[in-house]
Amino acid sequence: MSVRLADIVDALGGELIGDGDVPIDHIAAIDAAGPGAITFIAQAKFRDRLAGCTAACVIVAPELREAAEQLGATIVATDPYLYYAKLTQWWVARTRPPPPPGIAPTAVVEEGAHIDPSAAVGPLAFIGARAQIGAGAVIGAHAHVGAQAVVGAHTRLHPRAMLADACMIGERCTVHSGVVIGADGFGFAPGGPDNGNAWVKIEQLGIVRIGNDVDIGANTCIDRGAIGDTLIGNGVKLDNLIQIAHNVQVGDHTAMAAFVGIAGSAKIGAHCMLGGACRIYGHIQIVDHVFVDTCAVISRSILKPGHYSGYFPFDDNATWEKNAATLRHLYTLRERLRALEKRVK
Amino acid sequence: MSVRLADIVDALGGELIGDGDVPIDHIAAIDAAGPGAITFIAQAKFRDRLAGCTAACVIVAPELREAAEQLGATIVATDPYLYYAKLTQWWVARTRPPPPPGIAPTAVVEEGAHIDPSAAVGPLAFIGARAQIGAGAVIGAHAHVGAQAVVGAHTRLHPRAMLADACMIGERCTVHSGVVIGADGFGFAPGGPDNGNAWVKIEQLGIVRIGNDVDIGANTCIDRGAIGDTLIGNGVKLDNLIQIAHNVQVGDHTAMAAFVGIAGSAKIGAHCMLGGACRIYGHIQIVDHVFVDTCAVISRSILKPGHYSGYFPFDDNATWEKNAATLRHLYTLRERLRALEKRVK
Amino acid sequence: MSVRLADIVDALGGELIGDGDVPIDHIAAIDAAGPGAITFIAQAKFRDRLAGCTAACVIVAPELREAAEQLGATIVATDPYLYYAKLTQWWVARTRPPPPPGIAPTAVVEEGAHIDPSAAVGPLAFIGARAQIGAGAVIGAHAHVGAQAVVGAHTRLHPRAMLADACMIGERCTVHSGVVIGADGFGFAPGGPDNGNAWVKIEQLGIVRIGNDVDIGANTCIDRGAIGDTLIGNGVKLDNLIQIAHNVQVGDHTAMAAFVGIAGSAKIGAHCMLGGACRIYGHIQIVDHVFVDTCAVISRSILKPGHYSGYFPFDDNATWEKNAATLRHLYTLRERLRALEKRVK
Repeated sequence: MSVRLADIVDALGGELIGDGDVPIDHIAAIDAAGPGAITFIAQAKFRDRLAGCTAACVIVAPELREAAEQLGATIVATDPYLYYAKLTQWWVARTRPPPPPGIAPTAVVEEGAHIDPSAAVGPLAFIGARAQIGAGAVIGAHAHVGAQAVVGAHTRLHPRAMLADACMIGERCTVHSGVVIGADGFGFAPGGPDNGNAWVKIEQLGIVRIGNDVDIGANTCIDRGAIGDTLIGNGVKLDNLIQIAHNVQVGDHTAMAAFVGIAGSAKIGAHCMLGGACRIYGHIQIVDHVFVDTCAVISRSILKPGHYSGYFPFDDNATWEKNAATLRHLYTLRERLRALEKRVK
Repeated sequence: MSVRLADIVDALGGELIGDGDVPIDHIAAIDAAGPGAITFIAQAKFRDRLAGCTAACVIVAPELREAAEQLGATIVATDPYLYYAKLTQWWVARTRPPPPPGIAPTAVVEEGAHIDPSAAVGPLAFIGARAQIGAGAVIGAHAHVGAQAVVGAHTRLHPRAMLADACMIGERCTVHSGVVIGADGFGFAPGGPDNGNAWVKIEQLGIVRIGNDVDIGANTCIDRGAIGDTLIGNGVKLDNLIQIAHNVQVGDHTAMAAFVGIAGSAKIGAHCMLGGACRIYGHIQIVDHVFVDTCAVISRSILKPGHYSGYFPFDDNATWEKNAATLRHLYTLRERLRALEKRVK
Repeated sequence: MSVRLADIVDALGGELIGDGDVPIDHIAAIDAAGPGAITFIAQAKFRDRLAGCTAACVIVAPELREAAEQLGATIVATDPYLYYAKLTQWWVARTRPPPPPGIAPTAVVEEGAHIDPSAAVGPLAFIGARAQIGAGAVIGAHAHVGAQAVVGAHTRLHPRAMLADACMIGERCTVHSGVVIGADGFGFAPGGPDNGNAWVKIEQLGIVRIGNDVDIGANTCIDRGAIGDTLIGNGVKLDNLIQIAHNVQVGDHTAMAAFVGIAGSAKIGAHCMLGGACRIYGHIQIVDHVFVDTCAVISRSILKPGHYSGYFPFDDNATWEKNAATLRHLYTLRERLRALEKRVK
């Protein structure tokens, strides 16, 4: 594809400096952008990256107007990163054809399923009895929509995504491959046979309810509720390989990076950001606007917005060994210090 | 569904206090239980949660008999949590129809597979040559049973679950979606081409053998043995997104939370509980009745039953930064303390 | 299968001591090897394991020649572990029939796909339009090859593996079940609706390019590039449940254990080894020949080859509690020590 620079500005706004007829044939990162490319500087502090840039056009914040326009065509935008995001959407709408509508001949659609005529059902998809699929939804190859499950309008299940029986997902959501929504939560009571040592299954009676505009990354799992439901708010963004246990609640627009694990019945606020592989204990609460760093283990409620951390700093192995060995006796250091303080006094 | 309270007690026992004709139409958690609901107090220490409860019936331990019966109908049970578990099973047996028996027309069943006539094979399932499927087993949509694999009676493979060639799973097991049983273990020898720097694949000759009454959560992986087999005991319960490497042995009734990772040839005892995301080194042993906390890295054998822990306590970011910076020089603190102690003496 | 010992030596080399007519019917680990088995001692330091061995043949390094030949037939090899690796390959070539060639009647092959006549396409596989499948490639049951994706010669996609649209994988690769190659990277810009608090999707315009001889473990995810591509070098070996984010680069022959997570745009060198569950920050660089221990959080670039570590040492819970409590005030210990040092001076 090749477009005129002016076409982009006409569609997305911003102030164009330079020749609107410059042809643009791809979007690139600043360090890889040459002739034909449009690129961006996300923040003014990355000003140095402009040096020697040969891109056809750079999207910059107002502070970088002078520096950028000396190099060639420039778009000045209040928030260049947001402009770039919208540009990728505009670009994809022009270059990637949407999946064709209709139900493929090999799809398995059980009796009683309600599928909007404008929805596209891919080959080998499985649609359970009395499932509901909204207008414009896309159900990919080998995807699975369980009995009585509900898929909102314009939501896309990528190949091999799965929405189990009775679970509900809203509109304009994206569910990537391998996602499992609505498997059983992990619930067992001690006290079964084998002298009371076996586990007795607690049937998981709830469902998963997911709002609108939610994105769910590949191979992520969201378990159905034990009693009551697991709830994911509007605009939530989940990366790959995340585990959300039964009866968790996630507030609107919260984002989580890969490998986050949230134990049962935890309640996460809105507008939170959880770094990769952080762990949230069950039955605790995290208020809105909390940022948790990668790998932190959140073992009690966080009732105050802010930035929380907790991982072991890495080091060369020899140094780490010495520090780790000392750490295993840390409380005795404190006691020795206390004793010494008394003695010196 | 609506049942009489007396029907529940007739089926599951316990002492009924109050009117057996009270209609029950759902099971609820204590904080969400209103009219029509049956609920429970798992332990007497949660006595406070009874206050203001408007549930139709509460299941309680004998210590809470008086407090509960003042509020309405009550079931007194020795172990209310176990009673609740059995109630969910009784409830599901009445409300969720079992999958219909028989082999769907779209299932792929290779020549020579042995399938009990009472087993249910879902649409688009794949059954390899000479596989054996026991009585009452359920093989869901897009599930996969490899060549010569064995599925025990009344075991259920949910949609998209996979049991690779020659692997065996016992009776009454549940395998959730996305589970991969029997992929190759991670085995490579150094010394291949590229000046001996390439990896040479070690073919994984073993299988996975899984006992009876095992539950396996969504997207969990259990690798086949390198030489010899990977063994999962009876009654083992695995949460989602767990990794069990080749030749691991897991004892009966051990339970593991999400993201647990067990490296090759580790031997885990019976009746252990492994918290979420804890890591077990390869080739070590953990005896029976060991409880490992979330995120602990078990780097050597545990030969004594007990409770083991090891994660970095989280804090606000500024405090963590200061502690982490100090931690990187911890062993020098110890040396300075020692020097000071000598000097003071 | 039963083979003559001499057949093995004829095929794989090494010095045979003893009777070449000894029948071998399986490969076993040293502690499980009895009559009929061939086994190995990987390194001379494990010499003790020879004691009482009743295997039909042991593969040993030259240092163990005398000790081994007293027990029975022996193969002396420079690198017994590498010899064992090659033996497993030789064995499998004789015992596991390769999948039959041809396209199954139930496979879905979209118009325009180019499939080499010698490739085997399993039942219910999905091949998108204009995809290319090389000679001898195997596409398993329920696997998915997206539109315009490329699969190199002799590469195998196990059942339920997925290569998304336009992504490319080289020759002789193995992709295990549940792998997702080419899902969208996790990219969202703040600033959408809901008072600028919603996330705006950044379309992921790049692909994944994977070299030759790459192995990818079950349920691992490799995301497509945002702009520019995600690159996996030749001979890379990935275990199960790994997350590789958009625009990551992994150098040749690097190996990673389960649960490794690499954030966006990180650049990992060649011949690195990353231990299970270690985390690599985004946009950092790790040079060649770096070994990272399990669970280390690599928060800044590593520019020097070596061995790096960083996890909290586990302990019995009571001891850990005391140490963790002290750790939360560690920097104050340092300050108290400093004050005391001044005072003592």
